[in-house]
Amino acid sequence: MEIAHPYLLFLGDVHDDLAAKTAYGIVDWRRDWCIGQLRLPGCAADAKLPEMDIAAAKAAGARTMIIGVVNAGGVLPEHWVETIVAALDAGMDVASGLHMRLGAIEAIAVAATRNGRQLFDVRHSTERFATGKGTKRPGLRLLTVGTDCSVGKKYTALALEKGMRERDLDADFRATGQTGIFISGRGVSVDAVVADFISGAAEWISPAADPGHWDVVEGQGSLFHPSFAGVSLGLLHGSQPDAFVVCHEPTRTNMRNVQHPIPTIREVIDATISSGKLTNPDIRCVGIAVNTAKLDEAEAKAFCKETAIEYGVPATDPVRFGVEGVVERLIKEFPAQ
Amino acid sequence: MEIAHPYLLFLGDVHDDLAAKTAYGIVDWRRDWCIGQLRLPGCAADAKLPEMDIAAAKAAGARTMIIGVVNAGGVLPEHWVETIVAALDAGMDVASGLHMRLGAIEAIAVAATRNGRQLFDVRHSTERFATGKGTKRPGLRLLTVGTDCSVGKKYTALALEKGMRERDLDADFRATGQTGIFISGRGVSVDAVVADFISGAAEWISPAADPGHWDVVEGQGSLFHPSFAGVSLGLLHGSQPDAFVVCHEPTRTNMRNVQHPIPTIREVIDATISSGKLTNPDIRCVGIAVNTAKLDEAEAKAFCKETAIEYGVPATDPVRFGVEGVVERLIKEFPAQ
Repeated sequence: MEIAHPYLLFLGDVHDDLAAKTAYGIVDWRRDWCIGQLRLPGCAADAKLPEMDIAAAKAAGARTMIIGVVNAGGVLPEHWVETIVAALDAGMDVASGLHMRLGAIEAIAVAATRNGRQLFDVRHSTERFATGKGTKRPGLRLLTVGTDCSVGKKYTALALEKGMRERDLDADFRATGQTGIFISGRGVSVDAVVADFISGAAEWISPAADPGHWDVVEGQGSLFHPSFAGVSLGLLHGSQPDAFVVCHEPTRTNMRNVQHPIPTIREVIDATISSGKLTNPDIRCVGIAVNTAKLDEAEAKAFCKETAIEYGVPATDPVRFGVEGVVERLIKEFPAQ
Repeated sequence: MEIAHPYLLFLGDVHDDLAAKTAYGIVDWRRDWCIGQLRLPGCAADAKLPEMDIAAAKAAGARTMIIGVVNAGGVLPEHWVETIVAALDAGMDVASGLHMRLGAIEAIAVAATRNGRQLFDVRHSTERFATGKGTKRPGLRLLTVGTDCSVGKKYTALALEKGMRERDLDADFRATGQTGIFISGRGVSVDAVVADFISGAAEWISPAADPGHWDVVEGQGSLFHPSFAGVSLGLLHGSQPDAFVVCHEPTRTNMRNVQHPIPTIREVIDATISSGKLTNPDIRCVGIAVNTAKLDEAEAKAFCKETAIEYGVPATDPVRFGVEGVVERLIKEFPAQ
């Protein structure tokens, strides 16, 4: 599976920015893959791309129309179907992050077949995975892990890919969730695979590579989240990281959607090493990514400084302060192979 | 989902006993639910039940025909379809442990609808789960965990249910795999649920209960198995056990189907407590179940004795020596509520 770019981003007629989070993420990280946006009357979201209809996008070279929005309930509204069919008729593929599969709507399935185009439902996987083997593969891997869900694991991985490439490291972001898949054009929503194949899917996402090549794997959930820890553990075992970065939001007290307190960074480091050494005995923490959005500049700096001292690794907010320190640490800890 | 008994066990024409392992397990633990067996010409398996055709089984009161065998590739052979349709036409439900869904075969789907009968594909789940919440539920729970896959976790859980009931404890086996589901008439194949819902499925399997009631939950995989640890962790978090029993096969050196060495019992106890306390801070080990099939009687006794001394909990082979010691320990550790 490889989603072809350039993309036309379809925003539908969603009522707010939050519903277009996926589209905004694509623009943030792959602006050069985005040719334009298509909005229906009443759309309140704006990805700040040139407005295009299907014909204009096709003429400009768009290869895939991305449904970069979510709708209440994950259902695809009937009045979006016409535009999707038009995109297929114009020769584009269509990719969606909705729960409902594109092919479940007959008009869309028929149009895809008629035009020989592909439909991508990135929340689901059509790939058949093997069970994980746990055997060490060549190549280097970094995984972002978290004290909770939604603390910046995807953002941190993407910032690291960018920072590592700027330092001439051979690094590729590896997506494990829907927005990440649109951003990299490939990947697997690991939380949507059948439980038996979590680590197998992670092995598939990050296959054997050159000894000096880095896969920067997007983490999911947290080993301490009672809803999703199984996914986090399978991803840890399958991605067998040499290095990991702990992502943390310092003002949060409870884990997302449950009553459990946030673990300490120390607990996450210890648990990640303890579990991760099963498939990579040399696993180590190389940095801490702090989401300081709710702190002022001085507080944010102070928190990062204290955290770096406490844990003996670089601590930074990737958005506010960049990831140079972490990349520096990686270069030092893993000299050219 | 509740599979109605009595059962008619369909053995098809499988070529050996191994293919009928599921049927044998049902007979071992629920002989009184089994009315008879139906074998096709050439069948090499024998569950030692009265031979019956569909009409005889129906007359004897059979309510569900169980496909208690596996075929190479998990596919349902075409020449079994006629018998399955006949069972449905006679008013029985049909349940299968094959990978291939019964309803995927048109003649079977049509016959089920025509007769208003249910089809159960126990490897799949039609239940929609919530994500796990991790909140403590009333009732007591015991989980069997393992140093590896296939070390006796299901057998141990069933032996404990039996032993606990003999001591007048209110105990129910909770199935998490296909054979277990036939044995208890309900349950979920947790390794087949979508990864996001592992702990949610475990919560569903073992709902809130009376304070003195025990759910004896069938474990899956091992926290140390690189293919399946995610399933084991989600099951641990969702079942939030008060007590666990470690199942171990002392002659095995490598974990099943991978190159990893078997962890020590100590490692499994420590990891289970360390992870399990997230949803039950009082989790504790109450026994060790040793699969001594490959040891002679003296070796088996010696190994159990040494293990009990080393870990300070009863150690036994449930098949060879029973589970009285573990049940005794449970009664002592958890006095009537």
